Amino acid sequence: MFDERQRYSADNCSVKRTLDIVGEKWTLLVLREAFYGARRFEEFLTRVGCARNLLAERLNTLTGAGVMRRVPYQEPGQRERYESRLSDKGLDLLPAIIALMQWGDRWQADADGPPVEITHRDCGHPAELVLRCAHDHTPLTARDIQPRPGPGAQPARSAHSDKSAAR
Amino acid sequence: MFDERQRYSADNCSVKRTLDIVGEKWTLLVLREAFYGARRFEEFLTRVGCARNLLAERLNTLTGAGVMRRVPYQEPGQRERYESRLSDKGLDLLPAIIALMQWGDRWQADADGPPVEITHRDCGHPAELVLRCAHDHTPLTARDIQPRPGPGAQPARSAHSDKSAAR
Repeated sequence: MFDERQRYSADNCSVKRTLDIVGEKWTLLVLREAFYGARRFEEFLTRVGCARNLLAERLNTLTGAGVMRRVPYQEPGQRERYESRLSDKGLDLLPAIIALMQWGDRWQADADGPPVEITHRDCGHPAELVLRCAHDHTPLTARDIQPRPGPGAQPARSAHSDKSAAR
Repeated sequence: MFDERQRYSADNCSVKRTLDIVGEKWTLLVLREAFYGARRFEEFLTRVGCARNLLAERLNTLTGAGVMRRVPYQEPGQRERYESRLSDKGLDLLPAIIALMQWGDRWQADADGPPVEITHRDCGHPAELVLRCAHDHTPLTARDIQPRPGPGAQPARSAHSDKSAAR
């Protein structure tokens, strides 16, 4: 599989493009809290536990990328402030957060078990992420899948050196 | 939902524990290449495109966490070297990588479309990650799910300040 892979550029890799936006621990923890319902700066600060300036920077990145949107609010007697809410683009990151959570639940949890359970709001049963194919063979594991070039695949600049690509 | 969340500690969060191991862009790109079949140092170097010392460090982290394992190999006339292969613990990160890829495919791809398609090796049809509940209501979105305290949930140290927890 690796030889085949070598023939295509990694420049436009979708994993890399995602990580260029959210590929930093604190950013992903900010998103986690947003899914738990945090909206205001102090709420994120309390639950994420990073430094104030770092949080401000991460929220700016997420807003700039359209993952979160700033919505004004005003408490009585105070100046107008902004809270940060997930956009549709941000809400669509839920599977990534749950994938990370499920792996942590399976491989890094304490003996007590997972600290959080994700359930289907309507029926109350546990929700889980499943890899399946269009013919519903499920669940697929790493041994069952095969990457192949997609419509946007581009040839590598040279077979064994496109280092400049992946900056 | 946020008020409820505040009552529990974020210390033992499974997302955070996962990110403590893989929550860095280059680490996730190393894993991506491992899923594509890279095993040897120079293969990762070419495809991931990070600095040599950074790659060595990331591979050490992954090996130390049991996500990859070092396997000796020897080319004729050369000294014994080690390649890095995904362990079962590492293979189980596939959903996380695919979740990041799917989001990038949907929100960040060029007009041509995704550069890589993931298919079911046996039947050749596209594979996708689906969030569903135990009663098979599917697909669930962020608006359909409800987090609740799991068996390992721990009370927050104080209702509004557990900053020390999330270092």
